[in-house]
Amino acid sequence: MSGQVFPFSAIVGQDQMKLAIILAAIDPGIGGVLIFGDRGTGKSTAVRALAALLPPIEVVEGCPVNSARPEDCPDWAGPAGPGLVSRPTPVVDLPLGATEDRVTGALDIEAALGRGEKRFQPGLLARANRGFLYIDEVNLLEDHLVDLLLDVAQSGINSVEREGLSIRHAARFVLIGSGNPEEGELRPQLLDRFGLAVEVRSASEIGERIEAVRRRDAYETDPAAFLAAWAADEARIRDAILAARAALAEIAATDEILRLCAALSLALGVDGLRGELTLLRAARALAGYEGAGAITPDHLRRIAPMAMSHRLRRDPLDEAGSASRVERAAAEVLG
Amino acid sequence: MSGQVFPFSAIVGQDQMKLAIILAAIDPGIGGVLIFGDRGTGKSTAVRALAALLPPIEVVEGCPVNSARPEDCPDWAGPAGPGLVSRPTPVVDLPLGATEDRVTGALDIEAALGRGEKRFQPGLLARANRGFLYIDEVNLLEDHLVDLLLDVAQSGINSVEREGLSIRHAARFVLIGSGNPEEGELRPQLLDRFGLAVEVRSASEIGERIEAVRRRDAYETDPAAFLAAWAADEARIRDAILAARAALAEIAATDEILRLCAALSLALGVDGLRGELTLLRAARALAGYEGAGAITPDHLRRIAPMAMSHRLRRDPLDEAGSASRVERAAAEVLG
Amino acid sequence: MSGQVFPFSAIVGQDQMKLAIILAAIDPGIGGVLIFGDRGTGKSTAVRALAALLPPIEVVEGCPVNSARPEDCPDWAGPAGPGLVSRPTPVVDLPLGATEDRVTGALDIEAALGRGEKRFQPGLLARANRGFLYIDEVNLLEDHLVDLLLDVAQSGINSVEREGLSIRHAARFVLIGSGNPEEGELRPQLLDRFGLAVEVRSASEIGERIEAVRRRDAYETDPAAFLAAWAADEARIRDAILAARAALAEIAATDEILRLCAALSLALGVDGLRGELTLLRAARALAGYEGAGAITPDHLRRIAPMAMSHRLRRDPLDEAGSASRVERAAAEVLG
Amino acid sequence: MSGQVFPFSAIVGQDQMKLAIILAAIDPGIGGVLIFGDRGTGKSTAVRALAALLPPIEVVEGCPVNSARPEDCPDWAGPAGPGLVSRPTPVVDLPLGATEDRVTGALDIEAALGRGEKRFQPGLLARANRGFLYIDEVNLLEDHLVDLLLDVAQSGINSVEREGLSIRHAARFVLIGSGNPEEGELRPQLLDRFGLAVEVRSASEIGERIEAVRRRDAYETDPAAFLAAWAADEARIRDAILAARAALAEIAATDEILRLCAALSLALGVDGLRGELTLLRAARALAGYEGAGAITPDHLRRIAPMAMSHRLRRDPLDEAGSASRVERAAAEVLG
Amino acid sequence: MSGQVFPFSAIVGQDQMKLAIILAAIDPGIGGVLIFGDRGTGKSTAVRALAALLPPIEVVEGCPVNSARPEDCPDWAGPAGPGLVSRPTPVVDLPLGATEDRVTGALDIEAALGRGEKRFQPGLLARANRGFLYIDEVNLLEDHLVDLLLDVAQSGINSVEREGLSIRHAARFVLIGSGNPEEGELRPQLLDRFGLAVEVRSASEIGERIEAVRRRDAYETDPAAFLAAWAADEARIRDAILAARAALAEIAATDEILRLCAALSLALGVDGLRGELTLLRAARALAGYEGAGAITPDHLRRIAPMAMSHRLRRDPLDEAGSASRVERAAAEVLG
Amino acid sequence: MSGQVFPFSAIVGQDQMKLAIILAAIDPGIGGVLIFGDRGTGKSTAVRALAALLPPIEVVEGCPVNSARPEDCPDWAGPAGPGLVSRPTPVVDLPLGATEDRVTGALDIEAALGRGEKRFQPGLLARANRGFLYIDEVNLLEDHLVDLLLDVAQSGINSVEREGLSIRHAARFVLIGSGNPEEGELRPQLLDRFGLAVEVRSASEIGERIEAVRRRDAYETDPAAFLAAWAADEARIRDAILAARAALAEIAATDEILRLCAALSLALGVDGLRGELTLLRAARALAGYEGAGAITPDHLRRIAPMAMSHRLRRDPLDEAGSASRVERAAAEVLG
Repeated sequence: MSGQVFPFSAIVGQDQMKLAIILAAIDPGIGGVLIFGDRGTGKSTAVRALAALLPPIEVVEGCPVNSARPEDCPDWAGPAGPGLVSRPTPVVDLPLGATEDRVTGALDIEAALGRGEKRFQPGLLARANRGFLYIDEVNLLEDHLVDLLLDVAQSGINSVEREGLSIRHAARFVLIGSGNPEEGELRPQLLDRFGLAVEVRSASEIGERIEAVRRRDAYETDPAAFLAAWAADEARIRDAILAARAALAEIAATDEILRLCAALSLALGVDGLRGELTLLRAARALAGYEGAGAITPDHLRRIAPMAMSHRLRRDPLDEAGSASRVERAAAEVLG
Repeated sequence: MSGQVFPFSAIVGQDQMKLAIILAAIDPGIGGVLIFGDRGTGKSTAVRALAALLPPIEVVEGCPVNSARPEDCPDWAGPAGPGLVSRPTPVVDLPLGATEDRVTGALDIEAALGRGEKRFQPGLLARANRGFLYIDEVNLLEDHLVDLLLDVAQSGINSVEREGLSIRHAARFVLIGSGNPEEGELRPQLLDRFGLAVEVRSASEIGERIEAVRRRDAYETDPAAFLAAWAADEARIRDAILAARAALAEIAATDEILRLCAALSLALGVDGLRGELTLLRAARALAGYEGAGAITPDHLRRIAPMAMSHRLRRDPLDEAGSASRVERAAAEVLG
Repeated sequence: MSGQVFPFSAIVGQDQMKLAIILAAIDPGIGGVLIFGDRGTGKSTAVRALAALLPPIEVVEGCPVNSARPEDCPDWAGPAGPGLVSRPTPVVDLPLGATEDRVTGALDIEAALGRGEKRFQPGLLARANRGFLYIDEVNLLEDHLVDLLLDVAQSGINSVEREGLSIRHAARFVLIGSGNPEEGELRPQLLDRFGLAVEVRSASEIGERIEAVRRRDAYETDPAAFLAAWAADEARIRDAILAARAALAEIAATDEILRLCAALSLALGVDGLRGELTLLRAARALAGYEGAGAITPDHLRRIAPMAMSHRLRRDPLDEAGSASRVERAAAEVLG
Repeated sequence: MSGQVFPFSAIVGQDQMKLAIILAAIDPGIGGVLIFGDRGTGKSTAVRALAALLPPIEVVEGCPVNSARPEDCPDWAGPAGPGLVSRPTPVVDLPLGATEDRVTGALDIEAALGRGEKRFQPGLLARANRGFLYIDEVNLLEDHLVDLLLDVAQSGINSVEREGLSIRHAARFVLIGSGNPEEGELRPQLLDRFGLAVEVRSASEIGERIEAVRRRDAYETDPAAFLAAWAADEARIRDAILAARAALAEIAATDEILRLCAALSLALGVDGLRGELTLLRAARALAGYEGAGAITPDHLRRIAPMAMSHRLRRDPLDEAGSASRVERAAAEVLG
Repeated sequence: MSGQVFPFSAIVGQDQMKLAIILAAIDPGIGGVLIFGDRGTGKSTAVRALAALLPPIEVVEGCPVNSARPEDCPDWAGPAGPGLVSRPTPVVDLPLGATEDRVTGALDIEAALGRGEKRFQPGLLARANRGFLYIDEVNLLEDHLVDLLLDVAQSGINSVEREGLSIRHAARFVLIGSGNPEEGELRPQLLDRFGLAVEVRSASEIGERIEAVRRRDAYETDPAAFLAAWAADEARIRDAILAARAALAEIAATDEILRLCAALSLALGVDGLRGELTLLRAARALAGYEGAGAITPDHLRRIAPMAMSHRLRRDPLDEAGSASRVERAAAEVLG
Repeated sequence: MSGQVFPFSAIVGQDQMKLAIILAAIDPGIGGVLIFGDRGTGKSTAVRALAALLPPIEVVEGCPVNSARPEDCPDWAGPAGPGLVSRPTPVVDLPLGATEDRVTGALDIEAALGRGEKRFQPGLLARANRGFLYIDEVNLLEDHLVDLLLDVAQSGINSVEREGLSIRHAARFVLIGSGNPEEGELRPQLLDRFGLAVEVRSASEIGERIEAVRRRDAYETDPAAFLAAWAADEARIRDAILAARAALAEIAATDEILRLCAALSLALGVDGLRGELTLLRAARALAGYEGAGAITPDHLRRIAPMAMSHRLRRDPLDEAGSASRVERAAAEVLG
């Protein structure tokens, strides 16, 4: 139960998926990441690998929602702080069969039965504050739970009205969902609420497959040696994420960049503003990750497929996949 | 968790939606507002923005239903008052997954288990008295809950018969629902019980989209500065609402105005009287908002689409949308 | 929460509906009244208006079923009386979402948990004894609850067998149901168990509509003044109801009247005897309401549509509505 | 709540139904009676009228299952007897919405919660022992409850295995079910388990209808006078039932009668032996009711339709109703 | 409630059914018996008649699973023995509506609530150990309960994992199910797990029917006299069963008999080995019942239809019933 | 209840099934085994037989998850160790009807009610750690339970979030499922998560069937003698499994072997890497079982069908079964 996982940087291929996760780690405001793909393509491996990579956060001691300042800790918990402790960035895994009360928190039954007190017992959403919440096979989750999770992910606030409780607490996290499109689609309404979406496929190049199996086999044979060999690569990515976060506020969006975002959105007929807002923010995170001082049209071009594809309406006359349609439109609009 | 929201006046476009919400804030007797629209069109942003805009109300201290006079506070709560306190106009958000007992109120479990007392614990409807109740994605709510909410909204009384309780308390609020017509329609019976209905669409004009993204990005980059910049606009709308409320009782409806309301309703074949009553009241609120002393046919013409469209029967021979049909009929009837 | 309602006598039009309710108030033995109609036609307004109109009843003090004599108060309640108190005729409103245990009564949880006693806590049916029970949108109610209500309405006895309780108490009331035929029909079996049925339509005459809106607007602007203006009309109807009740026992049915009832029933092919029995009793109530000493064929002719229409079998070869078919048959049989 | 009912003998027409009920009252071993018919044909009136007609039974004092001998009272109840008391023959009405635990009996919650004892609280089946159990609209009852009732009716034993209880007690009763064939049929398996079945129709003769309405109206106007007028007729039927019960053991079935029963059953292609056994027993009861010393072919002829019709398989080539088919076969077989 | 039943030997006809039950009583290892047939063919009568016929068993005093040796009594019950008592072979009747907790046993609620102890309360499966478990209308039982019963019947062990309990106890019994094929079929998977299957039909020979009705009528008229008259026949069958049990171990199967079993199974295309194993064991039981020292091909021929018919795959090209197909194949293979 | 089972080595035929189970016992990392087949083909017999064959494990005394080291025992249990005890390899049988709380573990009700403590009571997954978990008829299990089991089987960690508990404990086991493809298929997603899959068929060779029935009959007649006769064969298999486990770490995979695995996977169009990883590991286990020092192409060829067949996409143009397609591709790729 050591929590030892395959290193993020040792994952062979799957560059789009890895980039999307990194961008969301740089700027949680981008919104969640949805990963679609065939079975066995390492979706959950990648997300679990993220845990080892992320830098620790400073947390008020005893604060149930991992806040950085005592005044942000909810009053329904006991007194928190004053000290700060360092903790790994939380990566909360939503287990299959988790009940709604464990997700949102609920009445503390022990306190209620034992001492007759009505206390709130925080749930997974509290624990995920300032971190990541991962849902494997999001299309198997009940609709109302997905709705609830996206609602909280967007507002950053978990609001509980049940069993005589009326609680609100911070719950800012990046939601990462993985799913297999063959097992049922998500409603467009839900798709739109994920910031980025990427698709992963099985590697078809034999060299890549051999390398992937070789690394897996090596890892399973001697995990400690394997992790040591990849430690430097892990550190490199972690440092770039931290640098990007620090730089983010300085990377302004020029009017021309704003215009290109809107033009691309109009060209694709995407409803609402979420598409272009996400495009803008993810491009800024990418610029930061690569150490650039400003967003360029090239940043937009590289981000557009993962920010826009899942927001297109079906076009029965256009046989190209949605990613191709985005690329085509990006080429026209961005020149 | 500061509750900081994007300012109402900074919303780009969407004039019909904003007007409908303002009118309902002036005269809650108009009934609820239903907002239909594509995803991402800022429906929930607008409603949440309303909170910052509304003037505070005077409330009896300790009164669970926000009453203005001690004699209007229910006896199942402890003693209330005598002092009055000032509070923001309540805007209660119905969270996804809220259970019926939290909506209507229910037996207080803590009191029942701990002290063997049968006490009522008020729910969201009590808290919403004299304010707004907002339901996002009203078409995802279970029918019986929508029925219940509309029933309370219309009668202004929450009547609870469950778990051996028999409670009634004031629950006057404006119900605001938003929904996406692509995700399933509301029954005509329910549609009719919303006072006004408006539809919002994504902006198709590029300048408008750029401006919207620019404001959003500015707000997210530095919220405090942004709110300060829009404070005067916010105050202007608030003042106009208060003025209209005060003037309302003085704006009489002439016989000719009554005749025009009825004639328009007959021309459109609308069942019942709710359509013309709503038209009359909303036109009066509009007159008040604009400082006019009397309702004019022009007021009726501007209100008709939002008061009547959702009450039309489908006409398979008329390809025009229902809003166009209302505008056409209004042009004929109102001259 | 004053319970102030629009006066019954100020309702514009809808004469059949108003008459049916009045007749049931004169002789509860007629059975319930079912009101079908478009939305917004004031069905629930009329029933709620009835409350203000009805004369008070004498009730044993502390009797949970409003009995007039101590010996009729159930023994499961504490001791009742000996004094009598005057109370408004009960008009119980079945709220949406009321649970079966609140309707029929159930185990008193407070007594069971707190004192280990098994006591009956009466429900809405107890409270409705000697009064009215109103169900809005009866076609939205679950079938088994409708069955139960009609069963009690007919037998006048509420029999509860649950949670180890075995209770019977008087529950004589007039059941009034309203519904919209567009939202699903009632089973013929249930239709037949309502004594009278009337249909209401939106007014199509513009003068009537204007008058209706004018009165509503006047009422909402200044309720107290409006109620005062209509007080005399209200009293006139109340007095006529009381007079009719007193006269009822004296208005015998001649053999010829009995023959006409049976002949009309046979001509219409109505199953069972409920149709002609209801016709007889409602005609007697009408005679009493109008101060006549005997039932005349004209009374039968005016009652026939509301007593018979909902008991006809569908006739696919007869395009006339069922009310017309009853009128045609009444003209032939009654001469 | 006096339980005053319309007298059995004053029911106009419906001779088959009345005879079937009388026969089952003479020999409960015949099995239940199923009454099919249009609404309003007095099915439930007839069964409720039966209560006033039946002779009282001798019961051990305090015995929860109405046994005639102390040794037949179950040990889970407290001590019973030794005295005997006289009680009306129980006629238990299964109220709509009765739960399975009240039908079969269940754990006594009061004893369990209050004193920690696991005691059985008997249900309606215990109360119905040695009497009648009436189910209105048997086709609306859930299948598993009908199964259970027929199972108990046939075995005469109520066996309860739930909540840690393992109880058996006598439950011999005549099951009477009424239903409307238009509201859904019973499964053939269930039909077969009712001993007799009769169909009732609305009277089509005007004199009969007038007489029926006249009697009803007279009864409702002055119940006491009406009951007095019919007391002698009631006594006559009661006496004949008691005489038949006493004579039953003496009325042997000759070999020829047995042969005719089997021949009729074979001619009709009825499965199993229940048809001819019921025919034999009901004919014997009829002979006893009419004071005859032996069963004659004429008795068989008169009983055959009510014992056989509901056991026929559908014959798509034979357009005659099943009662006609039975009469035709009876004419051929019985000569 | 005497449990008096119609004697097994007095049942007219139905020889296959009676033989199958007898064989299963001789060697429970044969597996359950499934009886298909029209309604009214005496399926449940035969099984209930079996109770009176079976010899008593020796049981450790106080052992909840009827074990013959103290060391076989489960430790979750109190101390058992040391004495032995004689008891009728248990014939447990699964009542309609029995809940899963009563079937498998469950947490003892009385002990849990009253004394805070977690004790197991055995269910019907414990009581059925070393006896028979009868399910009427097995096709009406929920699938998961049938699965569970067959699983226990095959393994002889009841394993309970619920409410914090983890219990195993012996539950060896013969499962007898009866059903009506017209009311829905059992899944092939379930069919295969019954050892033997027989079909019963209504007698079509008039003499047989007369005799059956005559015996039934005689039994119902004077049960004691009837039982006395058949006592010797009952004893004869009981003695033969006991003799067969004693002889079973001595009746070896020759290689030729094994070959014939396998050949017949292959000729019929029966999956798996259960068919031929059942054939072998049932033939051995038949040999024992008839006092033969060895299994002969004739024994196989007589057993084959009841051991094989329900294991055939449907053959749409072969119009013969499955019993005929087995007989034809048996004739070919067995010579 | 001795747990005596038919010996693994005495099973006639079914070599693929036996090999798959043995390989999973050598290297649990291979993942679960899915056994498809007709009814009666001994699937559950084989798995139950495995219990007697497996070598015991060393376990910390009192550790609820059978850990080998005290530091691996969860802290929610009481103190464990320090001693070690020897136990049979756990083979946990998932009984039909086991509830999710018993599978994953849940709140200890006894502790909660009796002492007001919130303690975790481990479930079947805890007991199965370091052993086998067997599910008969896996296709009858509810999807969410299968999902949960595969999820735990893959991660080796049971994570429980319910009733206010938040527990994680080691749960490494081999999942063995058996099913009948005629009773409904598993979703491809689930199929892929079983490491190996084999199909079993009824023996069609008469000698084999006779031998199987003979051994079964001998075993049932005298189990002790039969087990003694097969003890040496059992020991031989056990020793080979232990030797293979010890050798596993030394059997490296050459680059050529890795290439062949990937090439075969690509040739078959199998998604993801699970297919080739399983192929590699199972081939290594086979090499170890046969005492070989290195994996050869022949090992791959023999393992390929059971590692790959259930991962193929349906190919409507290729009528060969999936096993044949794997064999054909293996022949081409492996030369």
